[in-house]
Amino acid sequence: MKSRNQYLLILLVVGSSQAMAVGDLGRVIATQGDKERNIPPCSSCHGTDGGGDEATASARLAGQNAIYLARQIENFRAGRRNHPLMQPWAMRLTEKEIGAVTDYYASLPPASNAQPPQGVDLADGVALALYGDWRGRRLPGCVQCHGPSGSSVGDTFPALNGQPYSYLLSQLTAWTQDARSGDPLGMMAAVGGRLTAQESKSAAAYFAGLPPEGLGSDGEAQTPAESASTPAGLAARAEGDRSGPSQEDIPGQVDIPAGRAPDAQGYFEPPMRSERPDGRFGEMVALGEAIFRDTDTHPDSAPYVGNAQSCENCHLDAGRLPNSAPLWAAWVAYPAYRSKSHRVDTLASRIQGCFRYSMNARASVSGQPPAADSTVVVALLSYSYWLATNAPTGDTGMPGRGYPDLAATAEGYDAQRGQIVYQDKCAVCHGSAGAGQRAEGQVVFPPLWGADAFNWGAGMHSVATAAAFIKFNMPLGGFLELTDQEAWDVAAFVNSHERPQDPRFTGDIAETAKRFHSGRDDLYGTPSPFDGHLLGRGAAND
Amino acid sequence: MKSRNQYLLILLVVGSSQAMAVGDLGRVIATQGDKERNIPPCSSCHGTDGGGDEATASARLAGQNAIYLARQIENFRAGRRNHPLMQPWAMRLTEKEIGAVTDYYASLPPASNAQPPQGVDLADGVALALYGDWRGRRLPGCVQCHGPSGSSVGDTFPALNGQPYSYLLSQLTAWTQDARSGDPLGMMAAVGGRLTAQESKSAAAYFAGLPPEGLGSDGEAQTPAESASTPAGLAARAEGDRSGPSQEDIPGQVDIPAGRAPDAQGYFEPPMRSERPDGRFGEMVALGEAIFRDTDTHPDSAPYVGNAQSCENCHLDAGRLPNSAPLWAAWVAYPAYRSKSHRVDTLASRIQGCFRYSMNARASVSGQPPAADSTVVVALLSYSYWLATNAPTGDTGMPGRGYPDLAATAEGYDAQRGQIVYQDKCAVCHGSAGAGQRAEGQVVFPPLWGADAFNWGAGMHSVATAAAFIKFNMPLGGFLELTDQEAWDVAAFVNSHERPQDPRFTGDIAETAKRFHSGRDDLYGTPSPFDGHLLGRGAAND
Repeated sequence: MKSRNQYLLILLVVGSSQAMAVGDLGRVIATQGDKERNIPPCSSCHGTDGGGDEATASARLAGQNAIYLARQIENFRAGRRNHPLMQPWAMRLTEKEIGAVTDYYASLPPASNAQPPQGVDLADGVALALYGDWRGRRLPGCVQCHGPSGSSVGDTFPALNGQPYSYLLSQLTAWTQDARSGDPLGMMAAVGGRLTAQESKSAAAYFAGLPPEGLGSDGEAQTPAESASTPAGLAARAEGDRSGPSQEDIPGQVDIPAGRAPDAQGYFEPPMRSERPDGRFGEMVALGEAIFRDTDTHPDSAPYVGNAQSCENCHLDAGRLPNSAPLWAAWVAYPAYRSKSHRVDTLASRIQGCFRYSMNARASVSGQPPAADSTVVVALLSYSYWLATNAPTGDTGMPGRGYPDLAATAEGYDAQRGQIVYQDKCAVCHGSAGAGQRAEGQVVFPPLWGADAFNWGAGMHSVATAAAFIKFNMPLGGFLELTDQEAWDVAAFVNSHERPQDPRFTGDIAETAKRFHSGRDDLYGTPSPFDGHLLGRGAAND
Repeated sequence: MKSRNQYLLILLVVGSSQAMAVGDLGRVIATQGDKERNIPPCSSCHGTDGGGDEATASARLAGQNAIYLARQIENFRAGRRNHPLMQPWAMRLTEKEIGAVTDYYASLPPASNAQPPQGVDLADGVALALYGDWRGRRLPGCVQCHGPSGSSVGDTFPALNGQPYSYLLSQLTAWTQDARSGDPLGMMAAVGGRLTAQESKSAAAYFAGLPPEGLGSDGEAQTPAESASTPAGLAARAEGDRSGPSQEDIPGQVDIPAGRAPDAQGYFEPPMRSERPDGRFGEMVALGEAIFRDTDTHPDSAPYVGNAQSCENCHLDAGRLPNSAPLWAAWVAYPAYRSKSHRVDTLASRIQGCFRYSMNARASVSGQPPAADSTVVVALLSYSYWLATNAPTGDTGMPGRGYPDLAATAEGYDAQRGQIVYQDKCAVCHGSAGAGQRAEGQVVFPPLWGADAFNWGAGMHSVATAAAFIKFNMPLGGFLELTDQEAWDVAAFVNSHERPQDPRFTGDIAETAKRFHSGRDDLYGTPSPFDGHLLGRGAAND
């Protein structure tokens, strides 16, 4: 792989003189340094191809996001990252040089000199990477922020795939020991501290073994390795859920905000992934989980999704997490009469409603939700049913079902106040324009408004519902907790934006508002707090 | 009502001289008797209109089945019924007179002189009449043999509706005290002995209060009374299930054959009817039960039923009874992979399969099963779900689920032997030609073969399945138990007859047999033991 990348680099160097001209300063710093100012070439540690180095625990820089890289140099300069060599060298770079050298590395084709050690059990790492450990430690899967194969998301979440094992492990250790900071909102400092030493090794070995190119939009590695460390092979090995290590094994303080859902609170525990039955039913359950996690891109369900949403967006931990509308509680609560639909809904028709509203099926290829007896619905039903194993039929009072009610605050809610909260605490993932973020052809952070968001008929467009969801579920990892007031305000901000039209739209906003949006916390048909237009005109892809 | 019937009688007497001529002997005996032989006119006790008499506890004869009436005169003559006056009088009648007088009364329009006492609580009686008490005492509802309003079925099950209260009570007491016999197979002797004195009063009062004309095919009384004793009004009052009286309250011996299902054996107990929730969901549950009980005639489901079958035929006690494929066990066992369908079936698609095969939907008005999201399926799902309240999701091992396996016998099965069993013990209800029996526009005993039976694709066409069902569920009321050998043999007899074609028929019996009927106990494609033709040519309505 190294030689292939070197070959590509040579092609780039030889064939793209114009690009080279633009990046010349960066290339010079990277490959020659500046002897006069005692700045060695970056390549002396990070590799001539930028693929990093195991021996010196140096990161791969090739293909990494430029803004992220620049921020790291700033972190060294400010003492938020510690390295005896990098710190003094970083101090000597000019702002211009920092921009040039980080642009240079970002422009290089991804390369990796990682050589993960043999004999590290990868199972723990794969489980953490793909599934996290929500129930025990409210740990999202690494991929939920770093992208499907950890190949970076935006300018905040760096590439992990193909990083040298020694580098990844040193950084996980640094987070664990509070020896690194500067991450937005302190996310990694909080999350990294919840890993055991063994898990850190396993996760580092897993990502080090992934190809630096990332996965294609079909979820397959673009350069499939033949080892057992391919994502597919490893995922198969990590089918098991994690009961997680005992509390004593966990380094640092696991500080889960109040109101969240550790197991000790007596919530129902769905079966572990390792308990999934064999055979055709087990395959259907697995299909259901796959559709649930990647609804908008899974080939079976994509034709029914008209935006960039997945079931898992509103039902964290793939529908397992208490207080996040878990599927196990939904299974035992249907059929039930719902005033929204004016009928007795089965879980099948309830799921069709999710497609109609939250997934805006009207704008999908098929233009409608999947049929009640379609493979998609049967798979989602099978998955829900299996998660509910042993739950009492008809128990509509299971602790953790739905979202907890969030009491109204004395000050009510205010979208203007919410805007500040949003830009402070939400935009880093969902983007300042609410458009979410993608990686490798998949949505990593879902759009919150606009044409790719849930539509005006989805339950989440209610300020109360969104506030409750946000309060008890956001941000992923629970590393900070919004106050009730912040949750209400930011929910009002999010829901003060246009989104796809309500499929029940009668042709008139006021009439539609009267018929379907009379709820107290429903902003459809009310004036936008930002430009005064009547909310509900809809947002659509051109 | 009496005056109206008298008026009708006068019309008949005056206007139908020809009919009178044929029935003259009967009319003379009935209205004048024969003084020379000291035979008083029947009408002196049974009323001039044949409507019976409360004061003398005399049955209404008008409209009663002639063969049934003649058999009762024989019972008096043989001492199987006791009455100080009827017995000597009956002895004096010639065979010809018996035929004539019973024909005469059968030809009279139904009339009733019943005057049920005020103040009898009808709730017990209605519950017994409509629902029975399967769990506690394996009591079918009275209407399951006597017809929807007790207006008689065939020549075996007499009319109860509009009978004088005193007569009904005296007879229930007689059954209870072994003072009456002669009923086919000793059915009433067994069943009547399981009623308490209070229940006997209540049931007698209920039927005494029903109009003698019976119900129309729409289930409404043809001559609706205005009192609370209309079937609809009473059924509303009797929504409650019956937990049944304590053992001490039950007169006589409750002799339930081994292997049947009293509660004490630890079977799951579904909620009682009285616990059905209010509101739209409760209405859906009630609709589901109504469809389940009368699938072929209920207006919602009839368009999807191509024969004369109801769900309840194979799932006794409206899907509640253990070992009779109870719905509560089915609910928690789906979705599941089934080799028959080669797919993961939801309970919705499983129910569609019942329509396709057991209800032969192909021959129905719509030509197909109801859609997975149709009201019919949602109602049946809602009813199943509610019956499963508190059952553990995914528990595929609930005691009493499905039908118990019936071990093969050393002698195997033999349709010729089964024919004898059938004519002996089954034909009284299902008819000697397997065509079942109807009353008031509804199927009371379902057809077992022929065009109106389940088709060649239904599970019940397997000899093993039918044998198990028969062994553990037939006859209603469990007043006799077939040996394992009898169950196997009679199942083979029933399933050696033609029935509607398998909807999967390829056009060739041998090929269809090979593809879909390779089971050990599947007679499709084998020679008929009676005429040698290859079974599977199908039976259809012309």
